[in-house]
Amino acid sequence: MSDLAGRFRELWDGIAPVGRDADSGGYLRYALTAPELRLREWFRAQADHRGMPVSEDGNGNLFAWWGDPTTGDQTGTGAVLTGSHFDSVPHGGAYDGPLGIVSAFLAVDELRAAGATPVRPVVVAAFVEEEGARFGVPCLGSRLLTGEIDADRAAGLRDAAGVSFAEALGDRPAGADPTLLGRFAAFVELHVEQGRALVDADAPVAVASAIWPHGRWRFELRGEGNHAGTTRMADRRDPMLTYAFTVLAANKEARLRGAHATVGRVAVEPNATNAIPSKVTGWLDARAAEPETLHDLVEAVQAKAAERARRDGTALTVTPESTTPLVAFDGGLAGRLAALLAAPVLPTGAGHDAGVLAAHLPTAMLFVRNPTGVSHSPAESATDDDCAAGVVALARVLEELACH
Amino acid sequence: MSDLAGRFRELWDGIAPVGRDADSGGYLRYALTAPELRLREWFRAQADHRGMPVSEDGNGNLFAWWGDPTTGDQTGTGAVLTGSHFDSVPHGGAYDGPLGIVSAFLAVDELRAAGATPVRPVVVAAFVEEEGARFGVPCLGSRLLTGEIDADRAAGLRDAAGVSFAEALGDRPAGADPTLLGRFAAFVELHVEQGRALVDADAPVAVASAIWPHGRWRFELRGEGNHAGTTRMADRRDPMLTYAFTVLAANKEARLRGAHATVGRVAVEPNATNAIPSKVTGWLDARAAEPETLHDLVEAVQAKAAERARRDGTALTVTPESTTPLVAFDGGLAGRLAALLAAPVLPTGAGHDAGVLAAHLPTAMLFVRNPTGVSHSPAESATDDDCAAGVVALARVLEELACH
Repeated sequence: MSDLAGRFRELWDGIAPVGRDADSGGYLRYALTAPELRLREWFRAQADHRGMPVSEDGNGNLFAWWGDPTTGDQTGTGAVLTGSHFDSVPHGGAYDGPLGIVSAFLAVDELRAAGATPVRPVVVAAFVEEEGARFGVPCLGSRLLTGEIDADRAAGLRDAAGVSFAEALGDRPAGADPTLLGRFAAFVELHVEQGRALVDADAPVAVASAIWPHGRWRFELRGEGNHAGTTRMADRRDPMLTYAFTVLAANKEARLRGAHATVGRVAVEPNATNAIPSKVTGWLDARAAEPETLHDLVEAVQAKAAERARRDGTALTVTPESTTPLVAFDGGLAGRLAALLAAPVLPTGAGHDAGVLAAHLPTAMLFVRNPTGVSHSPAESATDDDCAAGVVALARVLEELACH
Repeated sequence: MSDLAGRFRELWDGIAPVGRDADSGGYLRYALTAPELRLREWFRAQADHRGMPVSEDGNGNLFAWWGDPTTGDQTGTGAVLTGSHFDSVPHGGAYDGPLGIVSAFLAVDELRAAGATPVRPVVVAAFVEEEGARFGVPCLGSRLLTGEIDADRAAGLRDAAGVSFAEALGDRPAGADPTLLGRFAAFVELHVEQGRALVDADAPVAVASAIWPHGRWRFELRGEGNHAGTTRMADRRDPMLTYAFTVLAANKEARLRGAHATVGRVAVEPNATNAIPSKVTGWLDARAAEPETLHDLVEAVQAKAAERARRDGTALTVTPESTTPLVAFDGGLAGRLAALLAAPVLPTGAGHDAGVLAAHLPTAMLFVRNPTGVSHSPAESATDDDCAAGVVALARVLEELACH
């Protein structure tokens, strides 16, 4: 393991400085900007070094082929796809995305060193704009490939500076590519864990069972703007109180159900120190293992907020802004990989390209232990030994799927 | 009364359209901008109509004299000052300020109609920039007159467009004027009530006892930014929870003490729907009748916040941003006026020019009932009959102070 950990570190150090912000220690690797373009060049160099021809679909996604790019279908001889993405959220961590690509190349090295002979192609992918941090739509590359977003709509998405995705890509995106998609028999994405379940389980690697259904709900609370100094407490209709109660209720109701609820965004009018607000808007992010639990959770938070609004003399309006149904990864595949690796099976609350591809081909995810449990932050981490364990696990999975 | 209410309405209608925003129904009467300059012209015309010469101090304050502007000292023959201000907060109400000036002119009319013969001058004042809405320092005119703000500092205060107070005034402000101040024996400011105590007391007019000590405290709460979807509830260090608990604790602790506490302003980092915040800052506005109660209130809120921060794994820093001590109006004068008017005596939580002048000469305030209790808002109101009752009360007070 220590030898592999050393090789992991060597490869990792080659990309660690790219796009790193010296002040925060986090990464600014937005899709198709200079740092991400450097990582894509690195991808081509790594593939070239391994004799793996690279194809680029018309959507900004890269594919490095160990095997013949022109063969394969979905009936059993199709290629086995792995990989992840290079792009980051603002000041994100080093591992979210790149770990899956670096691990894929090292897994190819492991298989070759062991003399494995794939009967199907093994393909390493780098998907574009997974985070949605530049153009606003997460998993943009995999959504285009699978046709889950219209190419025209994607072409017109603009970043904060007004540059469109088509301009950044250098061409209108090609959109759905059923031919390319048909060449893949399975997809396995390795990703750093975005939580501490593997710390508690004392295991370096897990297999994903599902992506929790999740959504965001806007809670608008209207009261009566007034003078903070002169308005008696009994005469107030203060929506900040209803907001505060709702925040605590969301936390409590989520804990009771083993679900997740967060209020991380708020807008206040007029947001002045000496003014009782006239309006407070909070956004509830809620996720749960089952759709029923999520539904119950949101209903419970809404009921608590409405009850408190009556006490506070405020008016509550709840608007669902987006909801994403449960993504259950292929159960047979997950069970097979968990048995193969003797690894725990865990759900996740975050979206991934694997979540998009799961609707189109058998898909699995592997998670690598993150000691801090933190993600989308410079504090995100993984030890070299755990990353090596991830490479070993991925190599065994690829061997299982591609060599028999 | 109905006759006087009619005369009030007639005079009031002359200024009602000035600076009114058609959309909100509120007023945009910032100091020394076009609408306020029109009201100052109206002031000169009203004074002229009544044969009252107008003097302007070098600080932007106007004084209309019934009597000889050159006589008077503080030993008993000094002038009796009344009046208020024209300027408004953004989209403020019609009554806050102008009611005191309109009522003062009508009180002069009442005294004259009754054949009263003042032995001391009666002076109607319009103070500049009471709200601080344009240049950021409330009671700027009265602070300059009394020397409570340095003239150089005031000269350099700038509005949002970068215009300095000196530029708006047309000259460097003159600053402290002990000679002018020495001509006044007392100040009585009539003001619309900024609360509903007179509604409950079923009385049209009250006498002020004091301006509550008050201040603002910044509560900074630092936690750990993280992914809202993937971070287990048990692993979170979410400062929004500590913030929410603090908001509710401030409300509860204020109610327990008969004090006022408001959290009307909040800042969140990164303020994203799918991110547990790394930092939440809330501003506590707290006010109480006694300094000890205010101190205890803020201590109690801080203790509750600290306790919750320990539970949430967040870090709390509390910084006092400003504190204003108790202003007790002249107790003898307040008692005398309350007896004269058979009016209740009430404290207020808001600052006024009367609060500034109270440190320099015997000062009193009269409040006129506000059915909504709302202020700094278009919903602020007073009936014509109550405004007439305010004029009658002010005339009796001026007669008491100036005619014996």
